[in-house]
Amino acid sequence: MLQYQAPLEEFNFLAHKVLRLSELLPLLPEHHHIDADLFRATLEVGAELTQEQLLPLNGSGDAEGCRLEHGGVITPQGFKSAYRLFYENGWPALTVPLSIGGQGFPGAAGVFFDEMLASTNLSFSIFANVREGVLRCVDRFGDERVRSLFSDKLASGEWLGTMCLTEPQAGSDLGLIRTTAVTQSDGSYLLSGTKIFISNGDHDLTENIVHLVLARTEGAPAGTGGLSLFVVPKYQGDAPASPNGVSVIALEHKHGIRANATCALAFENARGYRVGELNRGLACMFLLMNSARLAVGVQTVGLAEVAYQNALRYTQERFQGRALNGATHPDQPADPLLSHIGVKSSLVQQRLFIEPARLLCAWVGSLLDEARCHPDDTWRKQASQLAELLTPIVKGYLSHHAGTHIASALQLFGGHGYIVETGMEQLLRDAAICSIYEGTNYIQSLDLLGRKTLGDQGQRLGIFLSHIPVLAERLRQRPGLEGVATTLASWAAEFEPLVQQVSVDTVFNRDAVGLVAPDFLELLGTVVFGYLWAWIADAAVPSASGEEFPRSKPALAQLYFSEAEVRVPSLIEKLKRSASRLEQLEQIQLC
Amino acid sequence: MLQYQAPLEEFNFLAHKVLRLSELLPLLPEHHHIDADLFRATLEVGAELTQEQLLPLNGSGDAEGCRLEHGGVITPQGFKSAYRLFYENGWPALTVPLSIGGQGFPGAAGVFFDEMLASTNLSFSIFANVREGVLRCVDRFGDERVRSLFSDKLASGEWLGTMCLTEPQAGSDLGLIRTTAVTQSDGSYLLSGTKIFISNGDHDLTENIVHLVLARTEGAPAGTGGLSLFVVPKYQGDAPASPNGVSVIALEHKHGIRANATCALAFENARGYRVGELNRGLACMFLLMNSARLAVGVQTVGLAEVAYQNALRYTQERFQGRALNGATHPDQPADPLLSHIGVKSSLVQQRLFIEPARLLCAWVGSLLDEARCHPDDTWRKQASQLAELLTPIVKGYLSHHAGTHIASALQLFGGHGYIVETGMEQLLRDAAICSIYEGTNYIQSLDLLGRKTLGDQGQRLGIFLSHIPVLAERLRQRPGLEGVATTLASWAAEFEPLVQQVSVDTVFNRDAVGLVAPDFLELLGTVVFGYLWAWIADAAVPSASGEEFPRSKPALAQLYFSEAEVRVPSLIEKLKRSASRLEQLEQIQLC
Repeated sequence: MLQYQAPLEEFNFLAHKVLRLSELLPLLPEHHHIDADLFRATLEVGAELTQEQLLPLNGSGDAEGCRLEHGGVITPQGFKSAYRLFYENGWPALTVPLSIGGQGFPGAAGVFFDEMLASTNLSFSIFANVREGVLRCVDRFGDERVRSLFSDKLASGEWLGTMCLTEPQAGSDLGLIRTTAVTQSDGSYLLSGTKIFISNGDHDLTENIVHLVLARTEGAPAGTGGLSLFVVPKYQGDAPASPNGVSVIALEHKHGIRANATCALAFENARGYRVGELNRGLACMFLLMNSARLAVGVQTVGLAEVAYQNALRYTQERFQGRALNGATHPDQPADPLLSHIGVKSSLVQQRLFIEPARLLCAWVGSLLDEARCHPDDTWRKQASQLAELLTPIVKGYLSHHAGTHIASALQLFGGHGYIVETGMEQLLRDAAICSIYEGTNYIQSLDLLGRKTLGDQGQRLGIFLSHIPVLAERLRQRPGLEGVATTLASWAAEFEPLVQQVSVDTVFNRDAVGLVAPDFLELLGTVVFGYLWAWIADAAVPSASGEEFPRSKPALAQLYFSEAEVRVPSLIEKLKRSASRLEQLEQIQLC
Repeated sequence: MLQYQAPLEEFNFLAHKVLRLSELLPLLPEHHHIDADLFRATLEVGAELTQEQLLPLNGSGDAEGCRLEHGGVITPQGFKSAYRLFYENGWPALTVPLSIGGQGFPGAAGVFFDEMLASTNLSFSIFANVREGVLRCVDRFGDERVRSLFSDKLASGEWLGTMCLTEPQAGSDLGLIRTTAVTQSDGSYLLSGTKIFISNGDHDLTENIVHLVLARTEGAPAGTGGLSLFVVPKYQGDAPASPNGVSVIALEHKHGIRANATCALAFENARGYRVGELNRGLACMFLLMNSARLAVGVQTVGLAEVAYQNALRYTQERFQGRALNGATHPDQPADPLLSHIGVKSSLVQQRLFIEPARLLCAWVGSLLDEARCHPDDTWRKQASQLAELLTPIVKGYLSHHAGTHIASALQLFGGHGYIVETGMEQLLRDAAICSIYEGTNYIQSLDLLGRKTLGDQGQRLGIFLSHIPVLAERLRQRPGLEGVATTLASWAAEFEPLVQQVSVDTVFNRDAVGLVAPDFLELLGTVVFGYLWAWIADAAVPSASGEEFPRSKPALAQLYFSEAEVRVPSLIEKLKRSASRLEQLEQIQLC
């Protein structure tokens, strides 16, 4: 069985020493009532909830799965009462703005809380997560009627929500969506069509479910420019509520997240309300999609963290073989696995991933706060652009690498890792969805290179790169970190000519973007991680009072750079040779 | 549902054009009766069996799993009759030597046949595979009595077999084995102890099961030097057979290979017969272990192949989005996924893995034939040493990378890949055992660097490297492949100083071996793959008659080199910096 202790010390270190929220939050009107003590105390209570209520349901929920009965989905034993507790204790309102009845905690608090949810029960966390994005869409784009119907219930978590994008013929290509919305005299619409792969599509956790649906009005243009966004409740009206033409036509059997209800839904003249302008549905949906992509990154951190914690424990408790440099436990028949350098090295690699990944999520969470309510216009705009640049890295880079690290953690258990009872294999299955949903990782890489880099002439990238000299300057003052500063600065200088080259290659052959996008995501992700490690190391250097949290962080940063100093030039070299690689690829026939 | 067409053309190309078996087999007394036509015809019949009988049982076997009833394991529906057909058609005897009642097909034929088994039903293939290794142990190390009791039944497949190594406290560290063997007046032994994770540990496919068990005789020294090897049947004597004190105490629930019975077995005064010398059990077991490691490599190729075939089909049939260079199917609402360069690139990466991986397995299979029965002493010895060097690469490098490529294939299905019904997710789960069993991949890397490279002063590595100039010389005659020749030769020159450096580092700190072993495995694997691609390209160059099979092979080889020309120097650089990495690692505290 998996064990888990929320990394509260890490959360507080990142929030207060690295992100310095106590300096930032007073500037942000939505969050200035949150201080470090409240931040800390709240996460402590959250840790208790997740460790004591959700972790025990993780393995059993996976084994039992959801089931479809009389047209409705029944969640696994314990989920309903766990959600009730979660709701009654006000957790759904944690990061909901004060103005719509929430508690107004900053994004970083939400990120850390969601990480604990993901570490202890990914399926539950998906039920809990989507709602807030739906709320924000409703609040921002909905009219008075829509807000009055849905805002309060979504803010409190009395109702949960879904995002309905995918259709059988429309996955990555949303332009192929066929669901129709027919306008009614009262300004509402009747929606008809089939949506598939809908997380939280149906369940017994709340009395109503609020679906956010992309559909096409009569006469709308083909493609994504003809899509509008609608909010469609499962039930309409007050008690006794009446069904609204939304039915479950299938409950998917999946590799993982088996306790979450992934449904195919049929909409048959279901009454819906438009949110946002006609034919601008995709743009509205992206508000929600970006927070969903951040949520996926957070999920991968939660899964990698719990995998790491269990692998670390197992390698301390399991005695096999002798350390190469001689017995570390000569009184025992063998040494603990952790005494083997290869085992330690694998665990260190996991930490080299988890710590900056966590910071990246919290940083983006914080940037989204700044983008929303920082008093300075330019600041808001830059924060928004930086968050946009980093989002595909959060989703694509984190989910890609988390899978590798979770597999490494499992590998440390040997055969025991392959057995269901240990709980590790569930993490691997659950994590596998993260590289697929909310836009596959290949889509993320195209978004990063095509839209966010080439598409804006490198402006967003420039904002990120402009942070590097500032940090490098600070690092030059830190004994032992001068080399890190130099390396970081040298990496930053590589991007302009590289982006220029890709841009020129693309003029001759547009496939150049499609080919190098995953490599570019990998390169920028690796460099961003370097920036984050440097930032962590800078914050972890002993203060005047001699306080230093935990002392291994500068050493971890140095190790990250030692390895990345080989990897980054090699990724750059690969990108530089992409034109000839494209030519070679074109000569290859696959069928 | 998964589909599969055995890659018979590839098998024949590798066997006859690349390995040139028609020149080799006449030299080998055990195999000289097999010609190209018989080879081809036999694999064709094998393809039919696997496609028609085993593939349909793959998904259902996974869903149903094995179950334990009245102390015995029941295999999933259809497995028993499929095994009966397999047995009655003589497949178990395919590569069994003529001298012990087999058909004497060469190792490469066995490799290709086993690949088809793994592509269509990994769980079934594991039931079928272990037996031949047990037979070879019994035949080589058993006395007259042991051979007469077990050889015929194992050779025909009337009985199946297991390898019983792992115990609850003894996994990677077999020195901790506690199972005891008490000698009896008739020369037999009574074995008592608990073995876990035993593949095929119990089942209803055959009337008897032959366990090969590592155990400790009374007064034997501690550690691996006190282990002897025993053959212990589930039932003894003739019909009606009487139980022999071997009972199933648990049937494991696993991530994958759910249709294979992974058992915990209790031996209680079970009668066994020693095979091989006292206290030399581990050495004897390694005869079987090495063929088991080759079998794991073959499994990964089979899984990667079926994943690739299905991904290729899906990307031709699924229409989403438009190709970056303009519509390839303007009459359709979207282009097939395969029109997207990133999708094609992913599929090409899978082929860049599968083709040399398949050749590597077949080559090692062939080297083991040569090691056994080539008339020339030196040839036999060198073949044996080369097979020893390549075995950890077959097991470790292939299983590590196959997982990545199967995940890439699944990723091309988007959300559909995550759904059980598609069949792709089962491949991912099944493949995950390959990096764990028969010695974890970390153990493989230590075997490669510690035992097979540093341990013999680079002699085995030298045999491999000596093949490179011969091939490079041929390649220099091939238009378009001159660059490949130069690169390959330059890589070969890097190894001597590198091994020398690791060797020196190890003198100062033995952990150096433990740290760099996985990187060394990765490097040598990448270079071996380069050698194999060059070999394939050389063989695929058009002959005088204009015949050329399939024309993309030289282009694939060139692409492999384009990429590896960046990766190899980067791996070497990483290895060169390992001493400082070790120092940094030592400064990091994990707990």
